[in-house]
Amino acid sequence: MSHYTFMLYADSQFFSPYAMSVFVTLVEKEAQFELQTVDLQAEANQSPDYQKLSLTSRVPTLTHGDFHLSESSAISEYLEDLLPPPKYRRVYPSNLRERARARQIQAWLRSDFLPIRTERSTEVVFSQPVDTPLSDAAQASADRLFTAVERLLVDDAQNLFGEWCIADTDLALMLNRLVLNGDNVPEKLAAYAQNQWERQSVQRWRQIERSL
Amino acid sequence: MSHYTFMLYADSQFFSPYAMSVFVTLVEKEAQFELQTVDLQAEANQSPDYQKLSLTSRVPTLTHGDFHLSESSAISEYLEDLLPPPKYRRVYPSNLRERARARQIQAWLRSDFLPIRTERSTEVVFSQPVDTPLSDAAQASADRLFTAVERLLVDDAQNLFGEWCIADTDLALMLNRLVLNGDNVPEKLAAYAQNQWERQSVQRWRQIERSL
Ligand SMILES: [Ca+2]
Ligand SMILES: [Ca+2]
Ligand SMILES: [Ca+2]
Ligand SMILES: [Ca+2]
Repeated sequence: MSHYTFMLYADSQFFSPYAMSVFVTLVEKEAQFELQTVDLQAEANQSPDYQKLSLTSRVPTLTHGDFHLSESSAISEYLEDLLPPPKYRRVYPSNLRERARARQIQAWLRSDFLPIRTERSTEVVFSQPVDTPLSDAAQASADRLFTAVERLLVDDAQNLFGEWCIADTDLALMLNRLVLNGDNVPEKLAAYAQNQWERQSVQRWRQIERSL
Repeated sequence: MSHYTFMLYADSQFFSPYAMSVFVTLVEKEAQFELQTVDLQAEANQSPDYQKLSLTSRVPTLTHGDFHLSESSAISEYLEDLLPPPKYRRVYPSNLRERARARQIQAWLRSDFLPIRTERSTEVVFSQPVDTPLSDAAQASADRLFTAVERLLVDDAQNLFGEWCIADTDLALMLNRLVLNGDNVPEKLAAYAQNQWERQSVQRWRQIERSL
């Protein structure tokens, strides 16, 4: 256990893939942290108290003493800087090009694939599937995702870059929006996503009790 | 001059704020690079040749020998890793919390403010203003931006964190969507954005000849 104490603010349904991403980083780092929830449906993120913590009124937000930070990829990078390998588990690749690729994937997953994110919300992943078929736009978005991931995943690699990194968890979440809904996903990609889903730190997030 | 040669793929109108961000990083690093254009309106980014270069079919893409990378923030981070300070100009703050905040701002500008990005495209910034007033949604988005930046900018600071960093350029671009269109922007913020706009590396981008 590290001697740092962190507070992670997540949505009260624990549906945010970005809150999950930071949670997984904290667990992988074996950091001590408390989990706080913000009721987004009641717009608790717009309260003056929360706005003091988060410049952007978003979840996740991490507080570390008097420092508070939002945006999940920035938080994982901060934790990697603060709790560096080898003492703490590495969450970004050490190889420069692989680290760049991991960052690319994180940025890409956060700024693209809107039709998938809309039609296959993480409620699908953490609660229950939907019956609606994918729209043409979402299917096109999925096809672009598959083509890219096919190029990234060598043979039946378990991780993108040999050792696990946080981009694996983010990518698996995106794929699992489809896999766990029973949508068509190429076998190699589905196996990758399912395997990532069994990672212990991810299971810790999945097993959080959700009052739905 | 560094001994590295890079190729930067930008949109052929040079309107992409993300291509500008990478361009500015390359200029600040005094890196040798060639600028290539991709005609997005002709969907040249969907060509098989471009897809070989960019996993995501997006601009900007940087190639460095046989390595190619998309997503502007990942590219600037890669360049910072590859051409580190003090030999090359620093583009991310050295202080851990400031670096985290710079990354937060980059991620936030890329995933929020859709109404501003839609109603005040960078055509406004690099070509000509529009007459349409901001919608309520865009005004609300702008108000959130102003509130956050007011908290970030101490007094009449020229930069977010003392020394310039790439998040200053990204933030100034977002503010200038409004400033250069003549929309209402708090004076301190407008002065900050205008000052950032005069930075030499930014001027280099602004002065690229655009066939409009
Ligand atoms: Ca914040
Ligand atoms: Ca390790
Ligand atoms: Ca790429
Ligand atoms: Ca410097």
